[in-house]
Amino acid sequence: MPAAPACSLGLDLGTGSARALIVETSTGREAGSAVAPFERGEGGVIGDPRDPLVARQHPADWIEALERSVKGALEAARGSDGVFQPGRIAGIGIDATASTPLAVDSRCVPLALAEPFAGDPAALAWLWKDHTAHLEAGEITRAAERERPELLAKCGGAYSSEWYFAKLLRCLRSSPRVLEAADGWLEEGDYLAGLLCGAASPRDVARGACAAGHKALHNADWGGWPSLDLLARVDPALARWCRGRLGERVLPSDRPAGRLSREWGARLGLPTGIPVACAMIDAHAGAVGAGIRPGVLVKILGTSACDMLVHPASEPLADIPGICGVARDSIVPGCLGLEAGQSAVGDIFAWFARGFGGAPQEALAEEAARLRPGASGLVALDWHNGNRSVLQDPRLAGLVLGETLATRPAELYRALVEATAFGARVIMERFEEHRVPVCEVVACGGIAAKNPFLLQLYADVTGRAIEVSRSQETCALGAAIFGAVAGGAHRTVEEAQRAMTCVSGAAYVPRPASKAVYDEIYGLYRALHDAFGLPGHPAGLHGALKRLIAIRERERARG
Amino acid sequence: MPAAPACSLGLDLGTGSARALIVETSTGREAGSAVAPFERGEGGVIGDPRDPLVARQHPADWIEALERSVKGALEAARGSDGVFQPGRIAGIGIDATASTPLAVDSRCVPLALAEPFAGDPAALAWLWKDHTAHLEAGEITRAAERERPELLAKCGGAYSSEWYFAKLLRCLRSSPRVLEAADGWLEEGDYLAGLLCGAASPRDVARGACAAGHKALHNADWGGWPSLDLLARVDPALARWCRGRLGERVLPSDRPAGRLSREWGARLGLPTGIPVACAMIDAHAGAVGAGIRPGVLVKILGTSACDMLVHPASEPLADIPGICGVARDSIVPGCLGLEAGQSAVGDIFAWFARGFGGAPQEALAEEAARLRPGASGLVALDWHNGNRSVLQDPRLAGLVLGETLATRPAELYRALVEATAFGARVIMERFEEHRVPVCEVVACGGIAAKNPFLLQLYADVTGRAIEVSRSQETCALGAAIFGAVAGGAHRTVEEAQRAMTCVSGAAYVPRPASKAVYDEIYGLYRALHDAFGLPGHPAGLHGALKRLIAIRERERARG
Repeated sequence: MPAAPACSLGLDLGTGSARALIVETSTGREAGSAVAPFERGEGGVIGDPRDPLVARQHPADWIEALERSVKGALEAARGSDGVFQPGRIAGIGIDATASTPLAVDSRCVPLALAEPFAGDPAALAWLWKDHTAHLEAGEITRAAERERPELLAKCGGAYSSEWYFAKLLRCLRSSPRVLEAADGWLEEGDYLAGLLCGAASPRDVARGACAAGHKALHNADWGGWPSLDLLARVDPALARWCRGRLGERVLPSDRPAGRLSREWGARLGLPTGIPVACAMIDAHAGAVGAGIRPGVLVKILGTSACDMLVHPASEPLADIPGICGVARDSIVPGCLGLEAGQSAVGDIFAWFARGFGGAPQEALAEEAARLRPGASGLVALDWHNGNRSVLQDPRLAGLVLGETLATRPAELYRALVEATAFGARVIMERFEEHRVPVCEVVACGGIAAKNPFLLQLYADVTGRAIEVSRSQETCALGAAIFGAVAGGAHRTVEEAQRAMTCVSGAAYVPRPASKAVYDEIYGLYRALHDAFGLPGHPAGLHGALKRLIAIRERERARG
Repeated sequence: MPAAPACSLGLDLGTGSARALIVETSTGREAGSAVAPFERGEGGVIGDPRDPLVARQHPADWIEALERSVKGALEAARGSDGVFQPGRIAGIGIDATASTPLAVDSRCVPLALAEPFAGDPAALAWLWKDHTAHLEAGEITRAAERERPELLAKCGGAYSSEWYFAKLLRCLRSSPRVLEAADGWLEEGDYLAGLLCGAASPRDVARGACAAGHKALHNADWGGWPSLDLLARVDPALARWCRGRLGERVLPSDRPAGRLSREWGARLGLPTGIPVACAMIDAHAGAVGAGIRPGVLVKILGTSACDMLVHPASEPLADIPGICGVARDSIVPGCLGLEAGQSAVGDIFAWFARGFGGAPQEALAEEAARLRPGASGLVALDWHNGNRSVLQDPRLAGLVLGETLATRPAELYRALVEATAFGARVIMERFEEHRVPVCEVVACGGIAAKNPFLLQLYADVTGRAIEVSRSQETCALGAAIFGAVAGGAHRTVEEAQRAMTCVSGAAYVPRPASKAVYDEIYGLYRALHDAFGLPGHPAGLHGALKRLIAIRERERARG
């Protein structure tokens, strides 16, 4: 009987479920996987009917789903061949949504699990898409603009309501009793890595450089965490709470956060002592699982889009205006991780199909695929959920130009797909204008797997070959890659990527005739983009759009 | 037994049917009416599957439907009370679509009814919405720009492919054998008035000043018909054909074209010799039936909108840029008739409800009516079928700004209704900028009768009281008014209007709170209108829209 191949276990904690994936470290073969949905709230998201900005999550959901998914993956791996042995798991990697921070007590137990705080939403995890901290985000932005503009430049010029300190400050103000009882404010992934390793207190928990850099202004070149001085300028109470509690070990994800504890080894049916890699953000793990390397943009295409690039840390890189995030070691250790994105992609198509298309999205896409570029006479702006890059303005809105009485739903559907492709091209050009080459694109995520029409259209519009990651689970695969490196099965992330990732089938290559038409229409998209998107544009239409939105808000408040 | 009241018979020849209406001249009471649909083609419109620009009509449809509708109206009048007597019909008025010209032979018989031309589409009537003559229209525009720009200024600066000489020239070129055999090119209404009066030749047929002025460059102040010199500059063949054939008697519609012939009296069951008023354009008759007078804009709201005003001919009036038509005696004799319009109104709502709204239009309107002005954050441009006034460009297209992932169909439906209201306001303001007051509005047409939501919204947007014509058949009523004057039952059109027209119920009055919000949004509409509609606008977006449409045409031609 041959020796069982070495494996790695990747854990991917998404918005609605946990996934566990066991991968052979020498080939990337997926030996087994399982997914376990969260069971509280609406698919794991706990809202508040009185406030649409609230989105919380219960840590018990994470813990239960993590255990179920790992057991399921082990069972699947055992069933898929005769050779798998849990003892051959070299390392465990973990990714999770971010910024999804959680108050824990001095023994690293979530307050949500303690009786006095049961039912207190502030003691739950503050899910990435919770926007209750928008006022606090503005305060942090203004303080950082005055004190440390260079930090702000790395996160696109504005601190987001989705991020770590904004949520912490909001919790301090709105639910002070939670933070009075707490001794740590941990990102979901860091908390879970600490849990698996049996961390005795929040001070023992390693903090992933990825979330620290992208969500919490951590910057190794400029002294690590933002200074207490800066935090005190926002609110002295914020600085007081953070003193000594931000974490001393901030590590890239190829480094172990610790080793699997006896308790969790027994719970999961795994040997004690397996190295557990430091956690990272789910999308960034996905980029690694999709094979990101310099020159290759990984685009996670789902309800929204996340665009990631890496740039060797040894090469100088000026700030790129309008790009949301730049952080060292955040994607591939030794590289700068660059993150941009589109606020809505699949969300726009689903919204249109559901409300306006009169047909299932598949039927619209099938008809749209048969249309000729340019023949509908339509061009749209894809700002239905704002613009994350390069305008960085969540309060914009969409535009459609060119409708006639002959316009059909499939034409408008295609125009919306094209709009997102033009939006993608704007981001790529912004990177290239600042000497970060975008030679090809690897797509992953839900849309990439099942929408060849969209991928060919993106290739034609962007003029770049688009490949699709072989794995349908690039986030979990990325986590497994970090597990493999942390566990010593590979020396570097790059080496692990070469062994464990690949793209599926042929690339989508730009078709010259389509590209030529789209180059023309892209010029029109840019004209609209600039006229409606740039505050200083002479057309004055940015002001008109802003006024329209201000009227909307005022009239809704009146109604 | 009291004497039967004096009556008038109005004949309204629309695009799909003929309607006859018998009205008491002293009260406007409708004694009887009947409608007879056309039976050839698609609801009377004979197209060509190979060419969407073709729209023809068979004169036999007119004749048959005219006879059926008059007999039906007489029967209805006899049935409705015991006192009606056909002998009390003082006059007959007639309106018809225009420009809908028809080739007739020297005995005034349509070639379409003669064996050698049966089945020849060129021998049919060229319906108003036939656009096959678009190249010829351009030639006429360019020649008139050079030779007689003052004539062109009265029809909005461009000669339309829908009009008399463009169609004649197109017919001369594409089907010369038809015009070789013809001795007249008669507007539908003029032909039918001649038919009823037993005209022996086209030379005997009186030409209505209304269609002559609005569609055929006739201008009494500047020598009547356009000179043969001008027509020869377009094409010598056009001038040769027109010599002696344009008609010597061009009359306002309060003057008789002749008297009912023995043959047609017998056919219809009416006394011989009843005065038949000179024909007029259907929409203009509708304006009279709706009670048009100086300061009152009549808006016919249907698939598109036609806006009409009258201005005392004794008061000076400068040319109004962007207003489609100005002609003397064309609506109310003794006044200048002013015509503007919106290329699509009901067509936009129907297009949206059918393709995008996911619900019947009534349901969308009902939900839309409950929304607050401004609360959707949407503003649209109503150019889905081009812009007839004030931009006068049929090759524009629509725009929607402000869509978000929360936008619902009823919100977009309302935004499109608002867009047409803003478009209506642009026209009103253009009139007033040139000292033609628009104090109130009388709405008629299909939408006015059944859409109180839209009328209230139009009042709020335009800031003017909107009334609705009592008669559902303002065109036929207008024709009957002219019949009454031509037949001597009233001395003037104004007198007949006072006796025979009125509005129904209360006016829709602007609500200050809504008006204030709409004043703001109208400013945004104007910003978009100017940016996308004016060639010289610094935003440069007019060029972008034009380029988009040019790409569309090119790619459709390739496909």
